[in-house]
This record gives sequence, C-alpha cells and structure tokens, in this order.
Amino acid sequence: MAESGPLVTIVMGSKSDLDVMSQAAKVLEQFGISHEMRVVSAHRTPDRAHELGRSAKERGTKVIIAGAGKAAHLAGVMASLTTLPVIGVPMPTSDLGGLDSLLSTVQMPGGIPVATTAIGKSGAKNAGLLAVAMLAMSDAKLADMLARQRETMQQAIEQDDEQLQQGLTAER
Amino acid sequence: MAESGPLVTIVMGSKSDLDVMSQAAKVLEQFGISHEMRVVSAHRTPDRAHELGRSAKERGTKVIIAGAGKAAHLAGVMASLTTLPVIGVPMPTSDLGGLDSLLSTVQMPGGIPVATTAIGKSGAKNAGLLAVAMLAMSDAKLADMLARQRETMQQAIEQDDEQLQQGLTAER
Amino acid sequence: MAESGPLVTIVMGSKSDLDVMSQAAKVLEQFGISHEMRVVSAHRTPDRAHELGRSAKERGTKVIIAGAGKAAHLAGVMASLTTLPVIGVPMPTSDLGGLDSLLSTVQMPGGIPVATTAIGKSGAKNAGLLAVAMLAMSDAKLADMLARQRETMQQAIEQDDEQLQQGLTAER
Amino acid sequence: MAESGPLVTIVMGSKSDLDVMSQAAKVLEQFGISHEMRVVSAHRTPDRAHELGRSAKERGTKVIIAGAGKAAHLAGVMASLTTLPVIGVPMPTSDLGGLDSLLSTVQMPGGIPVATTAIGKSGAKNAGLLAVAMLAMSDAKLADMLARQRETMQQAIEQDDEQLQQGLTAER
Amino acid sequence: MAESGPLVTIVMGSKSDLDVMSQAAKVLEQFGISHEMRVVSAHRTPDRAHELGRSAKERGTKVIIAGAGKAAHLAGVMASLTTLPVIGVPMPTSDLGGLDSLLSTVQMPGGIPVATTAIGKSGAKNAGLLAVAMLAMSDAKLADMLARQRETMQQAIEQDDEQLQQGLTAER
Amino acid sequence: MAESGPLVTIVMGSKSDLDVMSQAAKVLEQFGISHEMRVVSAHRTPDRAHELGRSAKERGTKVIIAGAGKAAHLAGVMASLTTLPVIGVPMPTSDLGGLDSLLSTVQMPGGIPVATTAIGKSGAKNAGLLAVAMLAMSDAKLADMLARQRETMQQAIEQDDEQLQQGLTAER
Amino acid sequence: MAESGPLVTIVMGSKSDLDVMSQAAKVLEQFGISHEMRVVSAHRTPDRAHELGRSAKERGTKVIIAGAGKAAHLAGVMASLTTLPVIGVPMPTSDLGGLDSLLSTVQMPGGIPVATTAIGKSGAKNAGLLAVAMLAMSDAKLADMLARQRETMQQAIEQDDEQLQQGLTAER
Amino acid sequence: MAESGPLVTIVMGSKSDLDVMSQAAKVLEQFGISHEMRVVSAHRTPDRAHELGRSAKERGTKVIIAGAGKAAHLAGVMASLTTLPVIGVPMPTSDLGGLDSLLSTVQMPGGIPVATTAIGKSGAKNAGLLAVAMLAMSDAKLADMLARQRETMQQAIEQDDEQLQQGLTAER
Repeated sequence: MAESGPLVTIVMGSKSDLDVMSQAAKVLEQFGISHEMRVVSAHRTPDRAHELGRSAKERGTKVIIAGAGKAAHLAGVMASLTTLPVIGVPMPTSDLGGLDSLLSTVQMPGGIPVATTAIGKSGAKNAGLLAVAMLAMSDAKLADMLARQRETMQQAIEQDDEQLQQGLTAER
Repeated sequence: MAESGPLVTIVMGSKSDLDVMSQAAKVLEQFGISHEMRVVSAHRTPDRAHELGRSAKERGTKVIIAGAGKAAHLAGVMASLTTLPVIGVPMPTSDLGGLDSLLSTVQMPGGIPVATTAIGKSGAKNAGLLAVAMLAMSDAKLADMLARQRETMQQAIEQDDEQLQQGLTAER
Repeated sequence: MAESGPLVTIVMGSKSDLDVMSQAAKVLEQFGISHEMRVVSAHRTPDRAHELGRSAKERGTKVIIAGAGKAAHLAGVMASLTTLPVIGVPMPTSDLGGLDSLLSTVQMPGGIPVATTAIGKSGAKNAGLLAVAMLAMSDAKLADMLARQRETMQQAIEQDDEQLQQGLTAER
Repeated sequence: MAESGPLVTIVMGSKSDLDVMSQAAKVLEQFGISHEMRVVSAHRTPDRAHELGRSAKERGTKVIIAGAGKAAHLAGVMASLTTLPVIGVPMPTSDLGGLDSLLSTVQMPGGIPVATTAIGKSGAKNAGLLAVAMLAMSDAKLADMLARQRETMQQAIEQDDEQLQQGLTAER
Repeated sequence: MAESGPLVTIVMGSKSDLDVMSQAAKVLEQFGISHEMRVVSAHRTPDRAHELGRSAKERGTKVIIAGAGKAAHLAGVMASLTTLPVIGVPMPTSDLGGLDSLLSTVQMPGGIPVATTAIGKSGAKNAGLLAVAMLAMSDAKLADMLARQRETMQQAIEQDDEQLQQGLTAER
Repeated sequence: MAESGPLVTIVMGSKSDLDVMSQAAKVLEQFGISHEMRVVSAHRTPDRAHELGRSAKERGTKVIIAGAGKAAHLAGVMASLTTLPVIGVPMPTSDLGGLDSLLSTVQMPGGIPVATTAIGKSGAKNAGLLAVAMLAMSDAKLADMLARQRETMQQAIEQDDEQLQQGLTAER
Repeated sequence: MAESGPLVTIVMGSKSDLDVMSQAAKVLEQFGISHEMRVVSAHRTPDRAHELGRSAKERGTKVIIAGAGKAAHLAGVMASLTTLPVIGVPMPTSDLGGLDSLLSTVQMPGGIPVATTAIGKSGAKNAGLLAVAMLAMSDAKLADMLARQRETMQQAIEQDDEQLQQGLTAER
Repeated sequence: MAESGPLVTIVMGSKSDLDVMSQAAKVLEQFGISHEMRVVSAHRTPDRAHELGRSAKERGTKVIIAGAGKAAHLAGVMASLTTLPVIGVPMPTSDLGGLDSLLSTVQMPGGIPVATTAIGKSGAKNAGLLAVAMLAMSDAKLADMLARQRETMQQAIEQDDEQLQQGLTAER
C-alpha cells in the first residue's frame, strides 16, 4: 500500500535551518537509512505542509523530523496531519536563544504529540538518533548498530578521560 | 463575490478558552458588529482549521481573532491561510503563566503577521477593540463609537480618581 | 532472547508523580498495550534505575516513558542506559512551573536523545500516544486504532464547535 | 475633514531603531502605500509624542506602526492617544534579548490595544504587512497585491525546497 | 512659586492597585508627610496623566510614586513629564508574576530615570521609604525619624531572633 | 557635623564595572556635582563596605550610587547601613544578560529600599540623573539645569526626527 | 580556642522563613548534630549579621546554613565574613517563584562561594544533609549514619515501587 | 580502609568543559590539595560515572566537584552514588546562557544534595574554594591559608580602590 519512499522525512521551515538540520541527516546516513530533506514552511507554504503531512504515511515515510524557529509550528502541523511519530527540533534564535522555538514545539496540547529534542545542533543530531531508535524497534540489525555507536561514543569519552589524566601527570 | 457572513470570526482552540474569548465577543456586541464564535483546533481538527482559514474571506469575514494556549499555533495557522488581518490572543497556562502561548503566537516569521494582544482576558477584550478599530478605518460611525467608548472609559477612571481622593479626605 | 515483559515501561521519580503519569497508562490501556508502572528515582535509587534501564530491552520493553520533576534526570538516565526510545515527561513544579523539569529533560547532549513532551498531564497523555505511534510503525492494527482515535478526537471538537454556534444562536 | 497626509505613520523611539523599522517602510513601498517615518520618543519628547498621537487621525493617517526598545512605551502611548489601530514592534535589546521590549509592548491593559509583532526585523516586516492587510480590508486592489505577494513568497520557498532536493541528489 | 500642595503624589494606574499602593501611603502617614493618592492611567486617561506630570512641580510636589502593572508605563510617563524624582512600583500580575511590570518600569532609556522598587507590597512600602529618604536629604528631623524607624525595625527582628532561640530551648 | 566630602558616592563591586559606572560620574560632572568613585566589594571587602556605608552620611554624602553584577548585593548592603537614598545599577552579565543582577538589586525586602535603574550603561546614566534630581529637590539652580538638560535632549531627538524626514524626502 | 557552641548555625532573614528552614533543623536533629536557629536579616540587622558571620568560627560553628528570599543576600553576607562553608537556601517567592532568591544566592562572584541548594523545603532539607556530609568528612560515625539514611530512603522508594506494582495487579 | 587517592575529584561531562573546570583545579593547586581531573559523562559513559561515584569514597576522595552543561545531570548522578559532599558547577550554554545547566544542577529533590555554585568560571573557582573550606573544617593549617587568601583578595580590591581614587584625582 505504501510507496517505497524514504523512511525518514526531514522538514525544515527555512533554508537557513539547513546547517542545523543536516546534523539529523548525517546520523541517518551513518546508519544507512533512506531519507529526504525538505524546505516546507508551516506559515509560508501551508498547502505544501498540509500535503506533505497528509501524504507522508502513504509515501512510505515512517518517521518525520521537523525543525523550525521562533513561533515554531512546523512539527506541530506535521503531527496534526499524520499519526506517524513526529520529532521536533527547536532552532536557536538570535533574540530569545531558542526558548521561543522550544516552547512552541514542546508545549503541544493533549492528543497531538511532538517528540521534542534540545535546541540546535545537538537536538538535530538526537532527532536523527531517535528516528534510528524508533526504526530499530523492529529491526534487530539497526538495534545492533545503535548499540555499537554507543560503544564508540563511550570510547571517545574514555579516551578524552585518559588523555586528560595523562596530561595532568605529564605536566607535573 | 463575498457572502454576507459575520464580519469577525472568533476562533478558539478549545471549548475551555470560551471564558477568555467571550471578552472579545462582548466588545463586538457592544459595537453591534456581526461575529461568529468557533471551536477549531489547529492540531486536533487541522482540516477544519484549513478550511476555515481558506474560506474566511469568501464568506465575508473581515478580521479573524484566534485564541489558543501553550504551543499556540491557531492564530499562525489562520494567518498562513488568509491575507485578512489575524489577531492572536495568548491563553494563560497553568504551568508557564502563558509565556508559552505568548511566544508561540507573537514570534511569527517575516511574511506572515499575527497581531498579538496581551495574555488572557484583557488581551481578548483588546482583540475585540482592535477588530473594531480596523473596521472603523472605513466606517466613520464605528470610529465615532470608538471615540465615545474611550471617553466613557476615561470617565470611569476619573470617577475612581475622585472617589479615592474624597475617600482619603473623608477618612481623615 | 527478549522475555515477554510489558511493551512499555512507565517510570516515575516519585509516587507523587502518579496522578500525572497515569495519563500515559490510561492511553496505553485504551490501545490494549501491555505496560508496567514503576517508581524508581534516578537520585534516590540509582542502582534500581541503572538496573531497570540496562535490563529493559532484555525484558521485552520496546519504549520507556519517564516522568520526573525539578532537576529531572530520570529520562536522561534511562536514555543513557538503553538504546530503546525514551520519552521524557516534565513534571509541573510549584516554584518554577515546570520550567526546571522541562529544561532538565529536553536539553540532552548530542548522542543521548530523550523525546520530550509538554509539562504535566497533557505531556503524559502525549507520551502514551507517542509510544503507541512508535509501536504502530510495525503494527498496522495499532496504526488503524490511532487513526480512529484521531477521528474521535476531531468529532469531539466538532461537536464543541457546533454546540457553541447553536448556543450563540439560542441565546440571541 | 482629514488632511491627505501619508496613510501609515511609522514612529520609532530612537534613530538607532531605523535599521529595524525600515523593514516596515520597505514593505509599504512595495505596496505603494504612502507613509512617513518619525523619530519621536515617548520618554524624551513626550509632547511631540502626544501631539503626533492626537493629530494622527486628522492628518489622514490610517494606521500607526511604533517601534521601541527596553521599557518600550511608544506603541502604548500612541494607542492611548488615538483610536486608530496601532501596531507595536519590540526592538531587540542587548541585555535581555528583547523580552523587556516585548512584554512592555504586548501586555497592554484592557481598553487600549496594541497589535504586537515579533521582536526585531521580522516583526517590523510583519508590521508593514499588517498595515497593508488592514488597508486592504476596504481596498480590493491592495488585497489582490497581498495575495500575489503571498504566492511569490510561497514560490521562493518551493524553489528552496527543490534546490535542496536536487542538491542532495546531485551530491550522492 | 510652587503652591503648597502635598509633598508626595502617589499615582496608580487602576483602582485595583490601591491595596498595594496604600503601603506607600501608610509609610508617609507614619512620617507625617503630606501626600495625595490618585488613580490616573497612562493609557486610559493620557491627558490627565500628562497634566498631572506637567503640573506636579508647580503644585508643590517633591516626589512622585507611580504604581502600575503589566505593560506598566505610568512611572515612565510621569518621569517623561517632570524632572522631579519618580519612583516606580511594579504591580504583581496574575500571569507573569509581575516580571512584565518590572521590566516595563525599570528598563528605562538613558535620560529619563525611574527609581524602581520591588514587585508588590514590599516595593510600595519601600517607595514610601525612598520618598522619605529623599525628603530627609534636606530635613534633619525627618532624617532622625528615619534613623529611629530603622532601629525599631532592627529591634523587631532581634525580638524574633530571641523568641526563636528561646522557643527552641523551651521545646527541648 | 557632616564633613564636606563629595555629595555623591559612586561605589562599584569590581574595577571591571568602571566602564559602565563612569556613565554616572559623567552626568555628575556635567552638573558640577562633587563625587567620588570607589571600588568596594560587598563580598570581598565586607568591612570596607560596612565602613563606607556607615560613615557616608557623616562624611557629607547625600546620595549613594552602587553598581554590581550577578548576585549583586552591593546596593542592598549600602542601603542596609545608611538611611541616605541608595541607587542601584545592575551590571550586564555574560551568562544571564543581567537578569541576575537586576533581580538581586531590585527585589529588596520591605524596609530597606534600593532605587533601581536599568541594566548597564543607560541605567548608570540614569542613576546619575536620579542623584541630580534628588539634590535638585532643595537646589533651584540644579533644578533649572535639569530642565535645560531635558530640553537639550528633546532637541537632539527632534533633530534626528527632522533629518530622518528630510532624508526620506531627499532619497526619493 | 573555639568555644563549644553548636556545630551548625542556621540563619534566616525573616521569621516567616521558619517553616522552610526548620526542614534543615529536622535533619540535623535526626543526626544528633548540635545547632542553633537564628533570625538575622542582612538588610534589617546588618550589624548583627556582621557580628554573627565574623564570630561564627570562634564560637565553634563548623557550617553555616542561610536561607533568605527575593534579593536574597544573607548567605552571601555570611560567606563574605567567614571562611567556613556557607550553604544558601533560596526561599520561594510569591511573585517570581523563587527565581529571584535563587539567582541572588547562587550567582556569587569568584572568591566568595555559597553552596546553593534547591528553592524551598527540599532545598532546606538538602542543606541539612550537606552540612552532615561535610561534618562526616572527619567523623566516621556520621558517615555511617548518612549511609544508613540513604538506605532507608531507598527502601521507602522501593516500597512505593512495589505497592504501585501490586496495586496495578490488584486493580486488574 | 580508604586508599590514599587524591582528596578532590573534579569530573566534567565533556572535554570542552576543561577551560571552565580548570579554574577549580587551579585553586586546589594553590592550596596544595591533591586532586584528579576526569572526563566522565553521565549520559555517554553511565557505567564509568556509576563506578566513579560508587568508588570515590573508598579511593580516598573527600569531595567531588562535577561540572556539566545543558541537561546537566553529572553532579546529581555523583550525589546519588556517594554520601561525600558533591559540588555542582553549571556550564554556560550558547542558547540559554546556562539557565538550563543551573536549574538541572541546583533543583535536586530532597534527600540528595548538590552544593551548586555560579554558572561558569567564577562558579568553578568557587567550587575549588568550597572544597578547600570543607577540608579546612578539620585542618587548621588549610583554614589559616584560606584566611590569608581572603586577605590577599581584599588587598587586591583595596588597591583597585586606591588606584581609582588616585586616578580621578590625577585626571583633574
């Protein structure tokens, strides 16, 4: 029934969000998960947004990641149009630091959930990882990859830890 | 071309917003301006919201007043679907005092304006008055009524002022 | 390999969070999804928290929902111990309205995602719905139930809308 | 009765606000709407502010746009002196990011509305668009221009969208 | 040249501020300083506000105390119209706790100072004491009274301290 | 009884506050008011702070201006040690924008007032002007100078206004 | 050299803080640690505060716990007068929820540390526990008691956990 | 029983926190207190964090200093695993200025205290000083060093004060 479109749709409200949102795409690439990146504005292209949200499931999308800033409605709009899980990434904003984006994304009313991550790049990266984790619920191979990625991340920090300790010793 | 529907459409995201939003309706009644009140949720009834926004102008609406709380997208959704002026009223919220509603309503991206008023009842009242002021731009009778309403308001405060001064004198 | 434990584990940091977190359980019950509710504190029972997070996947859990307040670390602790998707629900707090819980839950560093919902009961309800949406990714029957629940929700609001319009007519 | 002054008066509290407020003027120019720009401080030139507000209607002004920062009283002062619609633009501030300007502009008491837009340049742009939308309520030609401007804006985003999708394809 | 009006003018934006602002009056009564209380709204009675500010010095006022809430402009308006010292008292607000009133009162632009006190009743009390301190700069008797009031206040706390210590001993 | 020390004492908590606080000194110089500038930390030199506060009145000081940042206690400490009027200037802070300094300075308990101005340089300038206004209460010559300074300030803005209007005309 | 006064001094800025601060005293009683409770205001009884801080070490105090609200300077004042560890407890405040108290207590400048705990009762309880932990650094018996108290606390939560699980089972 | 490891363990959640946290190390070096610096992430290396917290006391650590940013759980995790005093340092964050780190560190639930210092470098310096003060409770020599350090700090500010006064004199 569903077309074999990409598994994850990454939507952003403006081309200027690409630098942040490409962190999510990078994660999906690392895990070999098909995805598309779209610039669709809840406010400036409402029909496109409506169409994208309504058609996502049929096109084969499993998870939507939406990033937007300020009065950030994009994730909420997506969530209102599909029952697929929608992950929201609040963009940093020059005036209020992204607090406006965060509250506009996370404070959804009961009934229409948005899975919100942190403001900015680490939030976008985590949106990618959340999408992987959701797909891994029914894909043992992905689950294994996730577990290995965690180990790699742990080892990087353990190396930082050892270098710091050696450095201190060396300095003395 | 436009049907003779009510001049002002008041939309709220939930029936629980009625207590606040009826302040806007009360003002419109005082000025004898035809209006309708609708419960339409940007998130829970997106198609109705879409339809309402898209059809408003054709139905004869001149101004839309939209009130919503938390991740308050309703005014922004209306504004994205019509070129009519849209007034947004942020609802008070139990957890963050309405700061979430305010930022979600006012921090719109360039291109899609929402005329935002204060949080809660005084904001809803002012939304009604803003709608009147917009209609009065091309309706001299309304403009006169607005001027008289201002005078009445001034007199009420002047009476408060006099009573306070007399009270202080009396007490001594 | 995985035991046939409940599909969703709901964890809360304190018994006093039960009133909020039972909103998540209620949703899962409506969808017939097996779940357990646990009181495990990241700070006061760290070993239990560690054990719960580490063992969740093996016990058959697919999604973890964690609710905590103030310096709300529980969701983050769970997320650090498992690659399963973890949903975080910030508790309202009497002093800062839940802003502390929200920031402590959502502002996770890159690498360890927490899917955060709104502060309080609507957030807990949405956490339940998010868990359903994740499970529905590979369960067409659940996906259908979700779609029907959306319709029911829409109809409720449409009824509110009609009653409000009739009421206004009636009153006049 | 009214002189044929400009239709829109843009007021700012300080010459340093010009960079932001000229975004509003630019929109009005695009729509061919006559306007004036004034530097009038609610606090430093209260008599001028008083006179400007009181005389606006008689001079033919239809809409006032007022931008100010910090304890931003200018829009409120204008609104207290005229029944014309007043649009307030909160200036960004170096210390509090414009939250002070926003709250000082939007939190008006019941009776004296200010139609507030977002902090900074996008808010000023939207103030211009709001003024156009208000004038378009009784000017079908302006309404058409507004509709076309929306389409142009949509097309720009749709182009961004297509470029992003092609770029991703090209890179692979 | 100056009429012998009251030395201190207490202005409030609404009769509902009386409960808070009467704390300032109470202090002035304790020090036997002549004062008047006025309800004058910067937004709803701008001409009265203008007249009050402009005439204050001539009527013999030495200090103005102004209390207002939300987009609290009253103190700033007074300060813009007189070179007398103006003390601003931010009213508590139900939605934002008075943060809006505080920022609207204290964040004045360079050139027009407002001496701001704390939000609410203790702020109003301190406004009264500040007015006394200003008058005491050229009134040795008032300065002595202020010094004695401080001693009384100290003794009250020292008594609390002793009672607490005795109570603890007694309980054991 | 009082020595003929400077009329205004400007105290700051750290040498790094000099750039901001010298704005207050500049105003006092313009008005020919004798003043001293001191670096005294409430936290790092409590005895000096204590001695300065306690001795200020005897040394002939009429007004104290205190600027400090973060947990900004200096103004409050001065106010606790003298009945002279104390003006507090919150320093901007790199992390919280000065909100910490502002709340620490303005939210004084009932009984010990601090006359707080805006965060940063405009606050320091206004602190200088407030001190002048207080001294002008019993010094008609100073009062006249203040009135003239206001006029000069008004003229500067009126010139900005005219230049802006001419500029717009010229450009066309 | 040091008198054998109580090991811990609990100071609060006002008698009204007793309800919160007695949570610290209760902890110290449970651990059998001698302590005193004092009402001393940094602002209203500065000499007493000065004397208390300066003499604490000589009187045998090992740790000071200070609780205050709003512009909460008491802990900072204590820390400025002694090299003993000072623990600060921010009081909840009716207007700003204790954010003012928190920032005034925690944002101390480099050189004068205050060990700050959470706003309100749980902060006061934790202040007591921190004092115990500090004393336990050189008192093995106290360290054992602390370890046992942790176990008791864990067991309480484990019981809540079991009851919740049984309750859910029972209900079904 | 305890090994003779370093007296103070400084832990940070990421190598990027080293610039801030080395301020704590610098203080400990000045006082000749043995210490170690570790990079251990509560979220990315939970087992290491668990092990470090659990083993700290046995390895001879007396005080733990933990610095982390955003959803800053590291200090809380340490505190949950040991009864040693844990000092938390909130890292500045680019988006929310460190308010997220502060609330995540300080708002601990009753039972598990974290002694929180200011955001950033001055907080890290004060964390070092707090650790010294705790160790000085049972080490008279350290207590003397602390007292001397305070004097040095006072003298530095007194020199600043004198230079400022001389500079002002010289300039005239």
